[in-house]
Amino acid sequence: MVDDQLTDAKVEQASDRLAALGIDAWLVFARETSEIPEPALSLIVGADIVWETAIVITAESTNHAIVGRHDAPAVEQLDAYELHQYDESIREPLRSVLEEVDPDRIAIDYARDEQVADGLTHGMYRKLVDYLSGTQYEDRLESAAPVVSHLRRRLIDAERARMDRAIDDTQSLYDEVTAAWEPEWTEADVASYLHRRLREEGLETAWGADHCPAVDAGSDAPVGHGQPGDRTLPPGEVLHLDFGVRYEEYAADIQRLYYYPPEAETQPPAGLQTAFEDVRAAIEAAFDCLEPGVPGHEVDSTARETLTARDWPEYKHATGHTVGRNAHDAGPLLGPQWERYGDRPELVVEQGDVYTLELGVETEWGYIGLEEMVEVEAAGASYLSTPQTELRVLSA
Amino acid sequence: MVDDQLTDAKVEQASDRLAALGIDAWLVFARETSEIPEPALSLIVGADIVWETAIVITAESTNHAIVGRHDAPAVEQLDAYELHQYDESIREPLRSVLEEVDPDRIAIDYARDEQVADGLTHGMYRKLVDYLSGTQYEDRLESAAPVVSHLRRRLIDAERARMDRAIDDTQSLYDEVTAAWEPEWTEADVASYLHRRLREEGLETAWGADHCPAVDAGSDAPVGHGQPGDRTLPPGEVLHLDFGVRYEEYAADIQRLYYYPPEAETQPPAGLQTAFEDVRAAIEAAFDCLEPGVPGHEVDSTARETLTARDWPEYKHATGHTVGRNAHDAGPLLGPQWERYGDRPELVVEQGDVYTLELGVETEWGYIGLEEMVEVEAAGASYLSTPQTELRVLSA
Repeated sequence: MVDDQLTDAKVEQASDRLAALGIDAWLVFARETSEIPEPALSLIVGADIVWETAIVITAESTNHAIVGRHDAPAVEQLDAYELHQYDESIREPLRSVLEEVDPDRIAIDYARDEQVADGLTHGMYRKLVDYLSGTQYEDRLESAAPVVSHLRRRLIDAERARMDRAIDDTQSLYDEVTAAWEPEWTEADVASYLHRRLREEGLETAWGADHCPAVDAGSDAPVGHGQPGDRTLPPGEVLHLDFGVRYEEYAADIQRLYYYPPEAETQPPAGLQTAFEDVRAAIEAAFDCLEPGVPGHEVDSTARETLTARDWPEYKHATGHTVGRNAHDAGPLLGPQWERYGDRPELVVEQGDVYTLELGVETEWGYIGLEEMVEVEAAGASYLSTPQTELRVLSA
Repeated sequence: MVDDQLTDAKVEQASDRLAALGIDAWLVFARETSEIPEPALSLIVGADIVWETAIVITAESTNHAIVGRHDAPAVEQLDAYELHQYDESIREPLRSVLEEVDPDRIAIDYARDEQVADGLTHGMYRKLVDYLSGTQYEDRLESAAPVVSHLRRRLIDAERARMDRAIDDTQSLYDEVTAAWEPEWTEADVASYLHRRLREEGLETAWGADHCPAVDAGSDAPVGHGQPGDRTLPPGEVLHLDFGVRYEEYAADIQRLYYYPPEAETQPPAGLQTAFEDVRAAIEAAFDCLEPGVPGHEVDSTARETLTARDWPEYKHATGHTVGRNAHDAGPLLGPQWERYGDRPELVVEQGDVYTLELGVETEWGYIGLEEMVEVEAAGASYLSTPQTELRVLSA
């Protein structure tokens, strides 16, 4: 769906960001985006393209779209660009647009650590370098991560409204599926219920449907990004779900936890209750630490240490991540300084960022994990999800 | 959906291909595939992964999967791999697997011309080179296009069965939508009808839903990859659709044409009939030329010249492309030797390839275009779609 207003706003945001960074042009180069999407293109064009396409957004002058003739109908309705069409090769129109813009610094979409800013494939990179060979521009290429990350992270009101809707829908579906739940349901049945409801509502999963929701029924379920299986939930154990709706391209990402008491039990085991409260305390610690200016790893260590101080083993993932068009979006990671996270835990939290806070512990009752969504305001964090503060109970 | 049998078969096909090419190892390196999928990973793992993941398939020894702990549940059920799990960094387990395999040639997923073999992003390429720096392996990297392209192109029976189903469903939906069609329908109404039916049947579009179907109502519609709009079809003009179903990851891609006669007209205009027959003749010329051993551009020029010999202008796209998991898949392109097609028109047709044959002409009645799907057998082509051999008529 091409949404001109959103596209125009994001292109303007990009120009402003380029000006602030002293980068003259941002060049997005893509082809056949239905199989390998270029996430930046989704934001600044809003339609798939088939032929090789170059979008050139400038700090201060005209923006250009160089597209194959058959892709032109999808792009020409956008006011943001001067349109250049080609039939046989993009080489000459691309070079001539660059000569007109004559940028000293050209940002392209590769990124070491921020995957949403890494939309240029290596083959296309090589092709681009070939098209520019012999010009003065081939040595002026740099990573556009500071541009793309900013666009992904600084959601405008129209984007936030969609995300709010995704959060609401996710929470409503949690209520529905647990009200409908029956003891004979397998993990796969839980997932099927949610998938059916999504289809009925015209919604999508926030990440791959094969593990959205992730469904962990009881203590035998392996925790992680696995697929819902044929386990049922034994009485006296917990059902853990990690689920999010995508509403008009904007995601939610929330984990919830439900206890299924055995018949005649009057209250949950004390150890289960303690585990739940410890997880809550660690999330609250992260919440309290989260404010503009703090680096991501500090929020992470605060939560992590809250749990280890209560004698739980350290969890092997980050405490939180941004959410936007993707459930795992751009900007700081609220995570430890492990190599696989690159420099993202060093990045600093900004007002307006949206994060999840997620962590858990493995117990004899199953995985006790929660994930809440929060927004960073000037004075600190506020919840976007309605936090789960009590162990919820499933009934047969 | 992880389909062990398909995955095992494709991994075996990959090993055989590596052995035939004299390449020791194929290394697939990816992360966060829900936003930027790595098409090869879909084929040899069949599930999204989140953390950095390396799959190493070898010509003759053990295959390895190096995955983050939280992704392990999705991968460990596959017998094809020895599983290596990590928490903080993939660097050491990746280097140690390579030392064990000790390959002289390592193929990685970049490709200049075949986009489905270009699943490695440039940021991930840089990261890989960094992980391998100081080892003897960093200088042994080459394009895996000859491996990936082969896997995509040589469909096994289970893959062909899915594609056959996608073709059947596409043709049935064409029948349905044109039976349901009403003169007041806009292009967008036609698309909505098909999207609703896909949802009801649990099917997907073969390419981005915003232009699948492409719907061109009459002579005012711009032809290409645009989005269905608010045009209705004037009497005396043609409705042209380009549409395909994806069934369990395998695509169809078919164009159909329908004429809406004005009241009291007893037969279509002679010019329209001639245009239709000329388009048919060009498709038949391509069909007759298509056989093992012929380079793609020869099939293209045969069709192209059939139309120009009948005084039509040359169409500005290729005559045909392979179909598989993607509507535009790997291998030869039945296209002209234009720069944007790279070396793909030079590649040679093989027995078992599946192609579309698609072309058309612009007329006063609208765009007269057809697209058929064909398979290459030892003696030549055979139709997989039921070819449209007559102008079909819409009734109010």
